[in-house]
Amino acid sequence: MTPTTVRRAHNFNAGPAALPLSVLQTAQAELTDFKGSGMSVMELSHRSKLFESVLDDAEQGVRKLLKIPDDYAVLFLQGGASLQFSMIPINLYQVGNPVDVYNTGVWSKKAISELKKSAEYRVVASSEDQNFNYIPDWKSAELNPTASYVHVTSNNTIYGTQWREFPITQAPLVVDMSSDILSRPLDISRFGMIYAGAQKNIGPSGVTLVIMKKDLAERCAESVPTMLQYRTHIKERSMYNTPPTFGIYIISLVTQWILENGGISWIEAQTARRAETLYASIDNSGMFYCPNRTEDRSKMNVVFRSKDHNDELENRFVKEAEAAGMIGLKGHRSAGGLRASIYNAQTDEAITSLAQFIADFSKRG
Amino acid sequence: MTPTTVRRAHNFNAGPAALPLSVLQTAQAELTDFKGSGMSVMELSHRSKLFESVLDDAEQGVRKLLKIPDDYAVLFLQGGASLQFSMIPINLYQVGNPVDVYNTGVWSKKAISELKKSAEYRVVASSEDQNFNYIPDWKSAELNPTASYVHVTSNNTIYGTQWREFPITQAPLVVDMSSDILSRPLDISRFGMIYAGAQKNIGPSGVTLVIMKKDLAERCAESVPTMLQYRTHIKERSMYNTPPTFGIYIISLVTQWILENGGISWIEAQTARRAETLYASIDNSGMFYCPNRTEDRSKMNVVFRSKDHNDELENRFVKEAEAAGMIGLKGHRSAGGLRASIYNAQTDEAITSLAQFIADFSKRG
Repeated sequence: MTPTTVRRAHNFNAGPAALPLSVLQTAQAELTDFKGSGMSVMELSHRSKLFESVLDDAEQGVRKLLKIPDDYAVLFLQGGASLQFSMIPINLYQVGNPVDVYNTGVWSKKAISELKKSAEYRVVASSEDQNFNYIPDWKSAELNPTASYVHVTSNNTIYGTQWREFPITQAPLVVDMSSDILSRPLDISRFGMIYAGAQKNIGPSGVTLVIMKKDLAERCAESVPTMLQYRTHIKERSMYNTPPTFGIYIISLVTQWILENGGISWIEAQTARRAETLYASIDNSGMFYCPNRTEDRSKMNVVFRSKDHNDELENRFVKEAEAAGMIGLKGHRSAGGLRASIYNAQTDEAITSLAQFIADFSKRG
Repeated sequence: MTPTTVRRAHNFNAGPAALPLSVLQTAQAELTDFKGSGMSVMELSHRSKLFESVLDDAEQGVRKLLKIPDDYAVLFLQGGASLQFSMIPINLYQVGNPVDVYNTGVWSKKAISELKKSAEYRVVASSEDQNFNYIPDWKSAELNPTASYVHVTSNNTIYGTQWREFPITQAPLVVDMSSDILSRPLDISRFGMIYAGAQKNIGPSGVTLVIMKKDLAERCAESVPTMLQYRTHIKERSMYNTPPTFGIYIISLVTQWILENGGISWIEAQTARRAETLYASIDNSGMFYCPNRTEDRSKMNVVFRSKDHNDELENRFVKEAEAAGMIGLKGHRSAGGLRASIYNAQTDEAITSLAQFIADFSKRG
């Protein structure tokens, strides 16, 4: 034990979730005195040069990782994906052009229930018929080329499915990537807008990342509340009002951590390897199975169940895993079962431990 | 120098602003391992018992300090006062009953410009005629007893004035206390709603405290976006979606820090003493003056100017103060001049240093 040894759990929480230890340690070291300022990042004026450079680092970090073209804005907002569910139709809906929506789980449904308050829409495909255990074939859906936009939930945190490729659309493609942002490369030019609560892959809760083709923001009526117009935040570079400064700082550190380790291709390879390890341990366990179609399995949220849906056994699994230092393996309350969330900051050690634990638990029964 | 000596600036920022050093040190110590969980507070599931106790501590801290009755909710939201400017009329305006508003500065005007997007209103009194250097006599304003509500900005951060006593109203009194919340005792039962961005007196940016008589939330139409209804957040105890967990944690520590030191009466006495010290140093300087009516001077934001409004001299003051370790003394860009923000976490040492600096600077000219 050296003085730098830190007690750390294997954290499989679905979000807020694990952050890189090195990021936490940097934040810890700087917490009372950021870069010799004699102030915490939390105490900096958001109008100070020092904070402006933090915001710049966060924005440039995201831009570099995803190769974001200049005609797209990168915004750090508040209110989570839940507020985006309302802001998007309020800003992007054009009367007479219903929104085309894919329904692939709880978060799609939440997006739809806010959407219907201010827009017309069509569900163009859904996997609800099979309890959301697959991703619909987007090619068989007839999209309306004049739709206000097309909405997709990229990764379904609760059911554990993930879009491998996104629909090719004529209307702007708007994607909720809350649970898989920065986990794979994207051709940004194919999207109208991408949004993500930060608390899974890129930082703490309380910041919402929005990547948006700037001209789309011009659709919004000026009569909409100023804070709800993307236009406002684009014009003021996320500084119309006081932004969530500490969260943005953590995002600047997380993006830097990814860049230093090899960027998105590093994350993508790591994610694939980890998901494979866990799904293999489940498939080979004899006791557990993954309810989702193999080609649609999420690489972020590994959902599994005991073969006979034995609640008592699953609860014992969660309890014993927790005793062994593995936290957050209970499935979402609306789906039941088990779930291991393995976002970007997950550790190899946690993956190995869990795979081994699944094998051992299954063997001893 | 002991190893615990921390380099700290005298931080007079208007917000985000100084936090208590002991709070930062606790957050620092716990940053990678909160209470033996092996996780940072940022990494806790918001649905975990551990985070629920953090949220509970923050709520109970605010409740104890302000003696908040049970029929009032205490909420931790996102989007700052700027989003409240829209949420309030959307939730509380009743068609046919215009809102009564006092206009006492930039933030009142911002509130009004959002208000007018969704409600009718009357400005019942304003201090704009004298560049907002006083608080209007509320007794001379004729309030409409059937107004949807009455809106007041408690402390005018930019101009440096503050309401000493609040209007007695029949309609619900709604007060923006972003810059003086938790600085003085309040009779909560006289208010319909109080709101405050956290980043001045109670925590970091990214959390908005709302204290609200619960039944007022029932005015809102169900067709309003779910995230914009107070009803939603009351029902879900600020956990409808993932709340800004780290900010709420810091609020729990700040409220605990106030409670341990003697509560609101301690803060109130400290605030009065500090404001007196600074205003005396300004009044006695020969070089500077406070432009505001004496009885309306803010105890949170001490605004002052050189007698001849000499920009060059004021800039030199800011620069030399900064060199002496005093940060954030430039006035708001819309008002010019100088400003020392002295919120709850300000230190006596900073106050003494600034008072002395004002005297010395004025003497040497």
